[in-house]
Amino acid sequence: MPRGLLIVVSGPSGVGKNTVISNLFSYSPNLKYSISATTRSPRQGEIDGLNYFFLSDSEFTKRIAAGDFLEWAKVYQHYYGTPRSYVEEMLTGGFDLVLDIDVQGAALIKKALPEAILVFLAPPSLNELKLRLMGRKTEMESEIMLRLQNIDKELHAVPEYDYFIVNREINLTCRQIEGIIQSERMKVSRQAPDFLDKIFQDE
Amino acid sequence: MPRGLLIVVSGPSGVGKNTVISNLFSYSPNLKYSISATTRSPRQGEIDGLNYFFLSDSEFTKRIAAGDFLEWAKVYQHYYGTPRSYVEEMLTGGFDLVLDIDVQGAALIKKALPEAILVFLAPPSLNELKLRLMGRKTEMESEIMLRLQNIDKELHAVPEYDYFIVNREINLTCRQIEGIIQSERMKVSRQAPDFLDKIFQDE
Repeated sequence: MPRGLLIVVSGPSGVGKNTVISNLFSYSPNLKYSISATTRSPRQGEIDGLNYFFLSDSEFTKRIAAGDFLEWAKVYQHYYGTPRSYVEEMLTGGFDLVLDIDVQGAALIKKALPEAILVFLAPPSLNELKLRLMGRKTEMESEIMLRLQNIDKELHAVPEYDYFIVNREINLTCRQIEGIIQSERMKVSRQAPDFLDKIFQDE
Repeated sequence: MPRGLLIVVSGPSGVGKNTVISNLFSYSPNLKYSISATTRSPRQGEIDGLNYFFLSDSEFTKRIAAGDFLEWAKVYQHYYGTPRSYVEEMLTGGFDLVLDIDVQGAALIKKALPEAILVFLAPPSLNELKLRLMGRKTEMESEIMLRLQNIDKELHAVPEYDYFIVNREINLTCRQIEGIIQSERMKVSRQAPDFLDKIFQDE
């Protein structure tokens, strides 16, 4: 069973990341969503072990101490983290994992697991992004301004990423990410050390 | 105009490399064949500047001295080489180039032009390769044995390659190489330094 790939997807708010990721599963049948752990309470309809692993504060901090997070962060009183054991179990099982995380989290993931593939999604233009954010109508203008200011910080992180995709059209972007997964699978550096033996064992 | 990619394809004799490469052009409309220079005489039907650049011995050695070959070799009295100026012109013009070369040549290309993408084509098994070579009926058994002995040397070079593809079916292999080209194009490391400015210039 070849080891699965960890695909980390980041991009500015409004770029269409959630839509791309939720569509990606129909392009990549081997792909699973990387489930994060959190100490915040489950919202209506959220299921433990499906949307999140819901942990108590003491359990979370215990796991931090045990080194069981590839990355973690505390945001407004609540912990969020990527469980190392879960990711490892999935990759060993041959599943690819997609992880939706911000640029700080992505950098920590790459440091903890250099095999991770970092994909940055960008909007076709900054104007387009503004239009998309304003089109949501769920956010106040001050919030939109805050998100736009955040973009500058995010762009400075792009050189740390492996791939850069301009999200012009959801299906094209999904096919491009699926293409990256397929190509990464063919990398010599990702083959098991004995892969040549398997091909040439019949002599 | 984004810079083109140089795809170097190697693989043992009988792996189906020529068939794959000649089919690849219908998958990759932007792809051109990298034309080599040689001092051997043109064979029936071969055209200068299409199949090869046919050079005199003195012209070839002058170009070696001028550093105009990414790699060159002398095989049975004749020189063969990859002209740097031609490759550079094509890549700058935005064309992708496919170069069919042995493992020694590929290593020299990668050294001269680290941006080159090295793809190794392998047969599904050694038995399959023997059957293919014997199926040709154009070669004597001693020649086949020589080619098979060469495989060991070639396999030792695989770790120097970027991608490893088992050539099970021509169309699948072509799609895989085309997928590699598309993915490599999305690499952050291959983007022009000002690519972010272009996207975010509208503010």
